[in-house]
Amino acid sequence: MSKNIKKVLVANRGEIAVRVIRTLKDMGIKSVAIFSEADRESLHTRIADECICIGPKNVKDSYLNKVQVINAAIVTGADAIHPGFGFLSENSSFAKLCEIYNIKFIGPNSKVIELMGNKDISKKMMQNAGISIIPGSDGIVDSVDLAKKISKNIGYPIIIKARSGGGGKGMRIVHSENEMDNNFKSAEKEAENAFGDGGLYIEKYIVEPRHIEVQIMADEFGNVIHLGGRDCSIQKNHQKVIEEAPPTAVSKEIMNKLYDMSIRATRYVGYTNVGTIEYLVSKNDEVFFMEMNTRIQVEHPVTEMVTGIDIVKEQINIASQKRLSYTQEDIKIDGCAIECRINAYDSDRDFIPSIGKIRGLNIPGGYGVRVDSSIYQGYDVLPFYDSMLAKVISFAKTREEAIKIMRRVLDEFVVEGVKTNIKFNKMIMNDFDYIQNNYSTSFLEDKMRTEGE
Amino acid sequence: MSKNIKKVLVANRGEIAVRVIRTLKDMGIKSVAIFSEADRESLHTRIADECICIGPKNVKDSYLNKVQVINAAIVTGADAIHPGFGFLSENSSFAKLCEIYNIKFIGPNSKVIELMGNKDISKKMMQNAGISIIPGSDGIVDSVDLAKKISKNIGYPIIIKARSGGGGKGMRIVHSENEMDNNFKSAEKEAENAFGDGGLYIEKYIVEPRHIEVQIMADEFGNVIHLGGRDCSIQKNHQKVIEEAPPTAVSKEIMNKLYDMSIRATRYVGYTNVGTIEYLVSKNDEVFFMEMNTRIQVEHPVTEMVTGIDIVKEQINIASQKRLSYTQEDIKIDGCAIECRINAYDSDRDFIPSIGKIRGLNIPGGYGVRVDSSIYQGYDVLPFYDSMLAKVISFAKTREEAIKIMRRVLDEFVVEGVKTNIKFNKMIMNDFDYIQNNYSTSFLEDKMRTEGE
Repeated sequence: MSKNIKKVLVANRGEIAVRVIRTLKDMGIKSVAIFSEADRESLHTRIADECICIGPKNVKDSYLNKVQVINAAIVTGADAIHPGFGFLSENSSFAKLCEIYNIKFIGPNSKVIELMGNKDISKKMMQNAGISIIPGSDGIVDSVDLAKKISKNIGYPIIIKARSGGGGKGMRIVHSENEMDNNFKSAEKEAENAFGDGGLYIEKYIVEPRHIEVQIMADEFGNVIHLGGRDCSIQKNHQKVIEEAPPTAVSKEIMNKLYDMSIRATRYVGYTNVGTIEYLVSKNDEVFFMEMNTRIQVEHPVTEMVTGIDIVKEQINIASQKRLSYTQEDIKIDGCAIECRINAYDSDRDFIPSIGKIRGLNIPGGYGVRVDSSIYQGYDVLPFYDSMLAKVISFAKTREEAIKIMRRVLDEFVVEGVKTNIKFNKMIMNDFDYIQNNYSTSFLEDKMRTEGE
Repeated sequence: MSKNIKKVLVANRGEIAVRVIRTLKDMGIKSVAIFSEADRESLHTRIADECICIGPKNVKDSYLNKVQVINAAIVTGADAIHPGFGFLSENSSFAKLCEIYNIKFIGPNSKVIELMGNKDISKKMMQNAGISIIPGSDGIVDSVDLAKKISKNIGYPIIIKARSGGGGKGMRIVHSENEMDNNFKSAEKEAENAFGDGGLYIEKYIVEPRHIEVQIMADEFGNVIHLGGRDCSIQKNHQKVIEEAPPTAVSKEIMNKLYDMSIRATRYVGYTNVGTIEYLVSKNDEVFFMEMNTRIQVEHPVTEMVTGIDIVKEQINIASQKRLSYTQEDIKIDGCAIECRINAYDSDRDFIPSIGKIRGLNIPGGYGVRVDSSIYQGYDVLPFYDSMLAKVISFAKTREEAIKIMRRVLDEFVVEGVKTNIKFNKMIMNDFDYIQNNYSTSFLEDKMRTEGE
């Protein structure tokens, strides 16, 4: 029954491509790296068994070029494609194309990706599955007047979001009716520019929540388990900055509720492979579904550290039509892991991307440290791609110890030639409220406002 | 009661100095690095809170200069000294000097170091404690004739060892009486040159044994526990090359026997702090005490990976006169860890040391990988010191997976500018007998003989 995957094309670049290729090597599966003309010297091309150029530097002509990626898989004889995160990872028409060409897309099927990718539909489905969602507009809000009417009903503050969005693009928090006009129009314009789709919807804005997500894993035989939760409440413009596992600021009772909801939701939508369901948990322990990510996430290593499970390996096993190798009872959460993303940007200058050659580099290591990186000394940080250079993960028996290890890790991490957010991450690791675990998703916004005053 | 250690001088260099400084940071204890004039640019000096030059490049004038090291501790106000491994770590007169100057030596007391450092005395003590030792000469053998007489009684093969030795210096295996003359004389000369002490003794040579050791931990209040065992049977000239935890080639019954013996021995000699007792386990499951190492060992990370315990932290806690924070029941061995030492030498050319500037470097990472290293791109590998550049540790649920991860790690590890043993380690990780866990301490000797034929 199980389909033996022998060669996987990794349809990504940078850190996540390196991450996936590593597990392919551990599994004895051949790996194919794809690269744009600008990425010829990238680490992922160097460690893969084969690599193939798929177009010029611009992502739309290379990493987002579905036909080219499929062609590369056919030419190299890859029988499966791992999409990583970003790029084509949540593109249902790409998954569909893989299905047509009989190349296994390592993720859920194209139909599920499509359903979960549409915020309206995914929320309706979750509601039907009995999962609480954030009160909001029933679909797209196509005028400022309608936005005002709906918001009055829900009660301010509300948040405007883009239908096709992600990463904070097209998002606005509106505190009262007279702030609506400006915010609505600018959000519409931003969404149009970013996604080619200006469609907006409105939700109740949950004040001072925690962002808690649940990692789920489902095989193609109806077995569904979870690998515990992650707390990703430290965000900047709705982009995650620090992630940890397990979430310790939320009660066991609430976590169990989220686990039950996540398993139920996964079954309801017929989801397969690994995925993440994101929730907001309000101050008074209300829980709201936010969205389902139908791919591996940037922060998956913190779950790997506390469960001892290689999640990418499980993705590939599931795609090979193997049954889950774990039952829920096998999953033990042990210790605490924290991840910091190391990005090439200047945190002193409004986080503008920083590019150039890495002239000096010291990558930390030692007890309680994992580094997932795609850089080396001499590597050119390019302007065409995401600014994430590396992820550092600290791991210890307690959160307190993991924080101390992370401070040491950030102290040792030296990148010369480009600016990074290492100092900014250090600031968080030394923040009293962070250490006390007493904060919400507005942590950074609050801190930076205070600093600016 | 507990003595608060606030600042520790790390009396070492390279990887182990970096290792110890990292834990000091995690514990919020100030660190002082010492360095020879040649080591000014070394990583350990860069990550320590303070650093102080203690002399010229030659080890006898710097890292082995007891008075200079003590002076450095006094000048910088360090209240404790961590000796690492090698150099002064098992030098009882240095530990004594620390005691006189009221600087806490992080290790057992000078008397215990002295007793265990003398192979005759340590074996007698172990025998008195009811631990089986390898049959051999009763003390020093001062003539070839006596050597022949004793060896006849014990039965060949026998092994000649140096009283003050370590690392294979002054060691000879003798298979029959007519091989004795040459071997005895050359061993005597080698020991004289290496240790200033030509004293030799003789032991029964145990054919095809495994080298199994037990990590113990004892506080200053009589509490003694073990952290499981390590298999270090892959050796070259009696120097460990690959280490793993837990030992899986030896039965649980034998391991429990070794644990009991180790706890008993530790109590008997009044040992405090962490230490290792090394055994040979013969093919037919006889166990023999070899020696006790009164310091942290190179291979301690494999135990850290399977227990989740920072052993250096425990060393410092014990030296601070704290009680052990674990009982024997708290210690759970989970998964399998393998360590490869990355050394700067040319494994194609008889393992001669390789020196020079590191021109290119890629340090591996990712799932199941720990790297303890002291190198960086641009670092000069010096001829004056030990050739170990880094240790890579792989960790997974099973030995089989840990081996696969180690292969991937070694594939990714690139050092340009000096020759290393990376390829040599890779060969071991791909060896059928190694993978089958079917070998003895003569593994490399056998392999290289076969290869040479």
